[in-house]
Amino acid sequence: MDLPKTAESVGISLQRLEGMLERNVKLSRWPDPRLFRFEKAVSGVEAGTVIFENGEIVYGYPKIKRAMMLEPALKRFFPDKVAVEEKMNGYNARVVRIGEDVVALTRGGFICPYSTEVVRERISPQVFRDHPDIVLCGEMVGPHSPYVPKDVYPVDSLEFYIFDVARKAKKDVQGLESTHRLAEEYGIECVPLFGVFDAGKAPEEIKKIVERLGREGREGVVLKDPRNVVRPIKYTSSESNCTDLRFAFRYFNDYGRDFIFSRVVREGFQAVEWNDSEKEFRERCLRLGESILASMGETIRERMAQDTIVQRVQIKVKRLQTAWDLERHLRYMGIRVVFGQPEPLDDGYLVRIEKLAMSTNDKTKSMIEGDLW
Amino acid sequence: MDLPKTAESVGISLQRLEGMLERNVKLSRWPDPRLFRFEKAVSGVEAGTVIFENGEIVYGYPKIKRAMMLEPALKRFFPDKVAVEEKMNGYNARVVRIGEDVVALTRGGFICPYSTEVVRERISPQVFRDHPDIVLCGEMVGPHSPYVPKDVYPVDSLEFYIFDVARKAKKDVQGLESTHRLAEEYGIECVPLFGVFDAGKAPEEIKKIVERLGREGREGVVLKDPRNVVRPIKYTSSESNCTDLRFAFRYFNDYGRDFIFSRVVREGFQAVEWNDSEKEFRERCLRLGESILASMGETIRERMAQDTIVQRVQIKVKRLQTAWDLERHLRYMGIRVVFGQPEPLDDGYLVRIEKLAMSTNDKTKSMIEGDLW
Repeated sequence: MDLPKTAESVGISLQRLEGMLERNVKLSRWPDPRLFRFEKAVSGVEAGTVIFENGEIVYGYPKIKRAMMLEPALKRFFPDKVAVEEKMNGYNARVVRIGEDVVALTRGGFICPYSTEVVRERISPQVFRDHPDIVLCGEMVGPHSPYVPKDVYPVDSLEFYIFDVARKAKKDVQGLESTHRLAEEYGIECVPLFGVFDAGKAPEEIKKIVERLGREGREGVVLKDPRNVVRPIKYTSSESNCTDLRFAFRYFNDYGRDFIFSRVVREGFQAVEWNDSEKEFRERCLRLGESILASMGETIRERMAQDTIVQRVQIKVKRLQTAWDLERHLRYMGIRVVFGQPEPLDDGYLVRIEKLAMSTNDKTKSMIEGDLW
Repeated sequence: MDLPKTAESVGISLQRLEGMLERNVKLSRWPDPRLFRFEKAVSGVEAGTVIFENGEIVYGYPKIKRAMMLEPALKRFFPDKVAVEEKMNGYNARVVRIGEDVVALTRGGFICPYSTEVVRERISPQVFRDHPDIVLCGEMVGPHSPYVPKDVYPVDSLEFYIFDVARKAKKDVQGLESTHRLAEEYGIECVPLFGVFDAGKAPEEIKKIVERLGREGREGVVLKDPRNVVRPIKYTSSESNCTDLRFAFRYFNDYGRDFIFSRVVREGFQAVEWNDSEKEFRERCLRLGESILASMGETIRERMAQDTIVQRVQIKVKRLQTAWDLERHLRYMGIRVVFGQPEPLDDGYLVRIEKLAMSTNDKTKSMIEGDLW
């Protein structure tokens, strides 16, 4: 890799880059092609930014901040018009062609072998022939997600929905209009656009959309500037906050305290802003309490029955090698996994995966045996 | 202070002590007498341990661990008999005589001027004449607590209830029997003892006691070995866990995430162990959800009405100087306080205090104004 050139491209000194290589920037030797990943944001370079060995740079997708109170945030950031897209619940990926190969990068800048197989099959190579420097930014969603399996979307296995488009070596993204146009032109799936609303009507319309999404078990919305000047903002449904909590307390000792705290605080602000009636407030309290205690209770009871607490996910692969590569990839991520025997299907293999929540297993067992906290 | 002698008394090398003096051990110059405090546990010396300038040492009270599941913990630690005392909800204090003066030490090893005034008035000096090296370990409870005001106890203002007795320069404590005997002999208030139970009956009896305490808004129990061999264990009521959460979410951005997480997890284990009926479980979920969302909602609504979020407490002092000393002490602790004008009473002064939750005030205001998280 040409370090001086790389330093110049990302706009930091060579000396600084060399220093960072030891701390914040890590080399990934596998899968091909080799790359450097920015584990943390440095000097205005987003975390997840990747520099491939051929020198090409793919910047990390900018973090989308969250409105806690919708109406004042809309007034402040979108005083004119706001576009409302669905925030789909899966995992982020950036898809690029490097040399002759299309690869899918995770948020952190790893090449995910499974996502790579999926996008190679789903996305017409023509888009990369026409635009060799394009970066498709999107969400991988569906029941065969190894990270966030969801069956609330019209997806059989796993689908890649783009929500933005960028270019290699460019930090800025192209926004709503370019993204939907490109998606249509190349037949790529795109996150649903619910509409563009005037400032006056937006809070009420968005509330209705978010409530409906919540009832359907879907996550929420991303608010965007139709002119692509102001940065997008996200906002989620109460049901989605509670689903996150249900998940977090199922594996209560493996999850960050901040993850839990943030979901709970969102509920507090939404209850006030949406001015819950007494009945609605009771329902929200009950939903919150249940999302915490029901799944945690399940975990404790299972552990008392000697069962190991695992998260079961499944993937569908065309080639068996992809499953073994995913296994290796997950282990690199520090996730304890057990891959089942592949089950042949007409068009590939189904592989069941168990992810072990070791800390929750250990802690729960020790409490059941009378240990003290 | 005689460092070599001090090093020898606490059983660490002089060199080590000198190193620690810079890191973990801090000098308190005020109020008199001057002392060194162990901010953290080091080399088997409990945090909160104090070395006075005359060389006398008062060890920190050993941390009491918590049972998450009562029955297995009882089986494991108290296979024979267990004594059940009330865990009163206030703040810890250790009371000792140094030279001619009785002082009250906080858990962290500061001299609290207000607690000191209270114990000087409440506790007969005879106990210190008879036992100059005695350390009374107890809980300060009542409505005039500047830290944890509670009106669920039969206390008009603030009372000191002892729960253990130690000796200067001794790490071990004397346990249940000595404590109750001493309390009776000198007319000192002592935490209630609910009884000593056989192992077979203990889980059911303790559950009944904890449920009753919960209904009365009281905290829970400390389980003790009547022979004072096994270390005590604490266990709290669901209502107390929820009261803590209500408090934490009233000042949601000033509280540690761990404080919140631990209370919630306790509810999870208790729900399973006590085998909640469907109705009881719904009530527990609702109680948990409300304890989080109701007080947080109050905070947001108050802040929207331009009010500053403060915690109002009040103290009753004999001498005005004690109030000013407490003000100085609280500021040392890093607590932002506003003391009101003292209101004369027949037997002293009532002083209203506002404690400012700065981080919660700032964060809530910024969210209300549409800032992003």
